[in-house]
Amino acid sequence: MAPTETWVPNVEPGSDFSIANIPFGIVTTPDDANPHAATAIGGHVLDLKVLSSQPDFESIFPSLADQRHVFAAPSLNAFAALGRRVHREVRAAIQDLLSIDTKHPDFLKANGSTREKALIPLTKVKMHLPLEIGDYTDFYAGYHHAFGVGSMWRGPANALQPNYLHLPVGYHGRASSIFVSGSPIIRPRGQIIADPTAADPKKPIVAPSRRLDIELELGCFVARGNNPGTSIDVNKAEEDHIFGYVLVNDWSARDIQNWEYVPLGPFNGKNFATTISPWVVTPDALEKFKCTGVEVQDRPELQEYLKEANKDNVFDIECQVDLTTPEGDTSTISRVSSKNLIWSFSQMLAHHTLGGCSMRTGDLIASGTISGTKSSEYGSLLEMNQGGKKEVLLCGMDARKFLKDGDTITLRASAGEPGQKVGFGECSGRVFSSATR
Amino acid sequence: MAPTETWVPNVEPGSDFSIANIPFGIVTTPDDANPHAATAIGGHVLDLKVLSSQPDFESIFPSLADQRHVFAAPSLNAFAALGRRVHREVRAAIQDLLSIDTKHPDFLKANGSTREKALIPLTKVKMHLPLEIGDYTDFYAGYHHAFGVGSMWRGPANALQPNYLHLPVGYHGRASSIFVSGSPIIRPRGQIIADPTAADPKKPIVAPSRRLDIELELGCFVARGNNPGTSIDVNKAEEDHIFGYVLVNDWSARDIQNWEYVPLGPFNGKNFATTISPWVVTPDALEKFKCTGVEVQDRPELQEYLKEANKDNVFDIECQVDLTTPEGDTSTISRVSSKNLIWSFSQMLAHHTLGGCSMRTGDLIASGTISGTKSSEYGSLLEMNQGGKKEVLLCGMDARKFLKDGDTITLRASAGEPGQKVGFGECSGRVFSSATR
Repeated sequence: MAPTETWVPNVEPGSDFSIANIPFGIVTTPDDANPHAATAIGGHVLDLKVLSSQPDFESIFPSLADQRHVFAAPSLNAFAALGRRVHREVRAAIQDLLSIDTKHPDFLKANGSTREKALIPLTKVKMHLPLEIGDYTDFYAGYHHAFGVGSMWRGPANALQPNYLHLPVGYHGRASSIFVSGSPIIRPRGQIIADPTAADPKKPIVAPSRRLDIELELGCFVARGNNPGTSIDVNKAEEDHIFGYVLVNDWSARDIQNWEYVPLGPFNGKNFATTISPWVVTPDALEKFKCTGVEVQDRPELQEYLKEANKDNVFDIECQVDLTTPEGDTSTISRVSSKNLIWSFSQMLAHHTLGGCSMRTGDLIASGTISGTKSSEYGSLLEMNQGGKKEVLLCGMDARKFLKDGDTITLRASAGEPGQKVGFGECSGRVFSSATR
Repeated sequence: MAPTETWVPNVEPGSDFSIANIPFGIVTTPDDANPHAATAIGGHVLDLKVLSSQPDFESIFPSLADQRHVFAAPSLNAFAALGRRVHREVRAAIQDLLSIDTKHPDFLKANGSTREKALIPLTKVKMHLPLEIGDYTDFYAGYHHAFGVGSMWRGPANALQPNYLHLPVGYHGRASSIFVSGSPIIRPRGQIIADPTAADPKKPIVAPSRRLDIELELGCFVARGNNPGTSIDVNKAEEDHIFGYVLVNDWSARDIQNWEYVPLGPFNGKNFATTISPWVVTPDALEKFKCTGVEVQDRPELQEYLKEANKDNVFDIECQVDLTTPEGDTSTISRVSSKNLIWSFSQMLAHHTLGGCSMRTGDLIASGTISGTKSSEYGSLLEMNQGGKKEVLLCGMDARKFLKDGDTITLRASAGEPGQKVGFGECSGRVFSSATR
């Protein structure tokens, strides 16, 4: 059984980073300005590069024999590429080192010098993108979001496109504008139709987006890829290809998107920024939160390549969206479970590679906006404001249809009991005026 | 004036690689299995890594002082990032070295030992992807293609979407499946509607694509990027940001694409393969082939950020599509000028970055399918076969609607007089059965 209690001081019961978690991230620290690997435990990071420089490292981490350099690298790609067996063994070894009953007290727990170098308060480190991202793909697997947004445009009877229940609809996103939590979000300028109800001809203007929105999503990093021309087996996708999960805020400029997206899909309405949380949470840490996803009456039978043996193929992780106004008032504007998906990441990977498209280590796959069925469970402002019609009420007598300059959006997500929580930390970004450019 | 005559033997008048060209590529050679930089002259490559290891290299290439390592790197990214002034000076220095009147005969022309090591028959080298590609974006700037395909679905009156003349429509493509010329193309499997005319409900099957097509495009590599949150000035785009051009075949599975693409755009119908030609042709080599692009009556006034001072913003390069059957018969199925674009690459870059999206060195931008107005000038089989209705006649009593297994498609393109031609070499790929997987 995995250890449940740690000797590390001040691990709050509410911390996302209990000993049951052990996520992986990239940090710079007061003593080391070169980005390198770490894990988080309570309010501290455990510096894995420091550990890997200890002489008996390989006896504690035998699966990293001759591979200790992966923790000194500026991204987790080399570590991710080692595959899930290694990730599992490394996570278990870290859990042991952090346990009050560690089998190797001399390595860390009772080793004052290593402990002092390796255990660093989270407040003293800077987080970086955890992986170098090759390609980024954004799916549309949040059923209630797709249904809700489709209903706005086409009514409930035609809300879903004919392909929606047959395949995980997705599009290629932009990798260059993926930022780690805390990075500023500059409001994009773009071509917009200032008054969509005006008579023809529709004349666009160039202006800062007036409909800046968020999208609450779960993302998944690829551990090992597949060769071009081959496909990923849906029942082996997680074990063989998934490194771990992050939160994703796929910032969206609805007015830019509306004008540009026919017929080739979203472009400038999305590619100015995507924010991800810095810690990669492993499939092993999330395993016990698996459950069934959205079930739809009279759903057509799935094609063979999408049929999963395990019906518990999504995660029941409680997600939360906070909006902090420029004045500093924070309102929670959504709480929703990540189980509200109609396609699993394994199905997304199987579909993505059906035609032979290759995945590479570090590729990022996002779920699409996660919304529930209730009005307190929407993952985008577009749904909360019913297509721009209604204001979302905030604390402090304030309200929003879309985001104002100075607003900060913070996504959070976690599962599990206090003291054993598995969470993602923050996925946060503050909106700056387009005049900042 | 640039030199026009070379001492290199056997440079055929019809060669794409005259002394007026001097493209850049990545090769492995019989003597060096590490990919590295080269240029092409006639039927030879000139190995730039070999040159860069000569003691007096920096006196011939002063702009590469302390930068000679860029020619030993496995991609041209570091060289591209040095910017256009350096590319211009390096190209001029190479032209001088190859000229019968070279100012530095002792370095190469009269230096038997260096010449023997550096001048290698093209047939003896293997070409590789010229750059490590971060993000790939495919535009839709081929006006006659957009109009022709739009007419098929919606009739000529509504052929173009309302946004088409206002902004360069584009979508994010897949970088992981971009291959260099000569790489095999495995026919993708995918969800398709076997009989699109069948009664509802539309039931997809999973099968190898029956409508495998090509798209003739011109591509452009980014030299230096822009910072996130900034935009590229349309009038500085080429000088400050474009490294050079390649041919692109954006292989397309029309049946997969048709079923999947609403509402988020093409996905598996495109992401199985994109082929590019191996030599990056510089803007300087193509400068004298600039001309005006497609002009449209009553075109709405362009937004300021898209207005170019130079109206000669596209290239008049003659492109050609050859189809070789499994039996070995080759037919030229299209001849079209690359001037048939309504947006220039500078405009594409200005639009792409309008909202602050960052370009990075090595990003690839493709034009979209280039078609002319005549039936001999189509850049895709979809247009040649009028949406699958008509057969394209080939030599040898053969015909095609779409591609057969064993077919090879070869794109070629060049401009200029014999002996002074500036061309791209081949962009070629052979289709293999999906059973190859």
